[in-house]
Amino acid sequence: MEIIFLGTGAGVPAKERNVSSIALQLVAERGTTWLFDCGEATQHQILYTPIKPRRIEKIFITHLHGDHIFGLPGLLGSRSFQSGDTVLTVYGPKGIKEFINTSLSISKTHLKYPLNVHEIEEDGTIFEDNQFEVIVKKLDHGIDSYGYRVIEKDLLGTLLVDKLKVFEIPPGPIYQNIKAGEVVTLDDGRVIDGKDFIGPPQSGRVVTILGDTRHCDNSLLLAKNANTLIHEATFSSNEQDLAHEYFHSTTSQAAQVASDANVKTLILTHISSRYQGDDASRLEREAKEIFPNTFLAFDLFTYEIVR
Amino acid sequence: MEIIFLGTGAGVPAKERNVSSIALQLVAERGTTWLFDCGEATQHQILYTPIKPRRIEKIFITHLHGDHIFGLPGLLGSRSFQSGDTVLTVYGPKGIKEFINTSLSISKTHLKYPLNVHEIEEDGTIFEDNQFEVIVKKLDHGIDSYGYRVIEKDLLGTLLVDKLKVFEIPPGPIYQNIKAGEVVTLDDGRVIDGKDFIGPPQSGRVVTILGDTRHCDNSLLLAKNANTLIHEATFSSNEQDLAHEYFHSTTSQAAQVASDANVKTLILTHISSRYQGDDASRLEREAKEIFPNTFLAFDLFTYEIVR
Repeated sequence: MEIIFLGTGAGVPAKERNVSSIALQLVAERGTTWLFDCGEATQHQILYTPIKPRRIEKIFITHLHGDHIFGLPGLLGSRSFQSGDTVLTVYGPKGIKEFINTSLSISKTHLKYPLNVHEIEEDGTIFEDNQFEVIVKKLDHGIDSYGYRVIEKDLLGTLLVDKLKVFEIPPGPIYQNIKAGEVVTLDDGRVIDGKDFIGPPQSGRVVTILGDTRHCDNSLLLAKNANTLIHEATFSSNEQDLAHEYFHSTTSQAAQVASDANVKTLILTHISSRYQGDDASRLEREAKEIFPNTFLAFDLFTYEIVR
Repeated sequence: MEIIFLGTGAGVPAKERNVSSIALQLVAERGTTWLFDCGEATQHQILYTPIKPRRIEKIFITHLHGDHIFGLPGLLGSRSFQSGDTVLTVYGPKGIKEFINTSLSISKTHLKYPLNVHEIEEDGTIFEDNQFEVIVKKLDHGIDSYGYRVIEKDLLGTLLVDKLKVFEIPPGPIYQNIKAGEVVTLDDGRVIDGKDFIGPPQSGRVVTILGDTRHCDNSLLLAKNANTLIHEATFSSNEQDLAHEYFHSTTSQAAQVASDANVKTLILTHISSRYQGDDASRLEREAKEIFPNTFLAFDLFTYEIVR
């Protein structure tokens, strides 16, 4: 479970920072990649990463501003051109379907894979399977903007093979029942409890990725106890009025959310192009005063989310 | 009058070649830039050139395939963000207006300048003023694809100031009439013919930029005697069948058009990503066998069109 920042700038692309997109690499977990937002030239940035477009399984759009969606039609087309043939699902605010359909139809882009577009209707769980649950909640950005909480489900403990050997329980199909924690009768008549032969369960990880927003209660709810919170920090802490006016957050506001929500790590992104070079370390410092375990993202920054 | 190639690849972006866009720099002539096509990340490529988005006056779209238009919404938005306030006109096939309107409206992009979108209805002159005429004709690409012939009008000869001095004709408002070639009466009673005091007219230049196409008669008509012809060469000369099947041209077909149309210079672009590294020089060689004065474009290649 690894995050790759594909674009960490705000509004317009610059040489230093492209517009928004974040990849959640779930290669070990499910052999796929999930994207969060898809600003223009996201597919260009992907050329410099190990991400394979045909492995992209889900794209979650936080809101419909151009710097978060204008890379979508090109990426969808290229995924088809590059032999992607598995289902792709796009989640996003109402309007994303019309944007995708119009772009593909006007450009005569015929996808060779099934595309589902799921428009968000209300806060709640928008995806769940036996591995992951994704919860979405509306934030505060003038237009509909959402945050996503990605919850990895707890993993069962692993089978304690060495202990099975000590107890001279020979390998066979019965290992499946033991691993499932069942009480089983062995061929030699012994009755054992599977639970005694599996290690402790592993806690799933939680990563929270927020769209553009002012400080709001839903940010806290989505981020509560997360391993990693990715929060926009369009402005420096001394531009609180500007941040409020444009429905954005400052470095300090993002750090306060991380602190109040008791997350382990905060990563700041969506940095205005007014901040160049040394300014970046200042932004990181401002946040660290409130929440020490903060990173300031840069394009192609890769971060592994450990348990 | 200078051409800057912003994207010279076909279909999907690659590290070596971005998707299609060509800038015609008319900075000396009218203080503006014209774009031909606007594939995804055209605005990113512009960051590495002297082009100012606010100076872009016209965008001519050859056809609606994604690799030629998906950079348009982002560029239009950024031009506004970067204080562009003059009129911008986009010319293109029917459908371009719906693509632009939907993209801007869904993304809540509010432009601070007037945007005109002119959909091509028939072959002919689509723009003309006292400096330039642009003629458009339909090519052969499966979907509507157009070529543009940009004609710079002949410039009047310059005023022969040294000769005026020899004839002791003092400077003043009358120089305007002399420059216009009128017969004028001087204060001292002499009658002179302005035509005797202006140099020879300078021929305007012609540049022809074609969209994706198979070989067709309209390519020849658009390119006739042009100073510079920019022609797609998606495939190598030995892939004629493939080129035909996908409504594209080979290097040799492009060179044959240049030769038959009697142009001065041919520049090949829209190169398939199957050709890498040394392949590029092979493509150029193939064309040069038929039309020696050929260049193979690369991203950011800049070419000055001399008279």
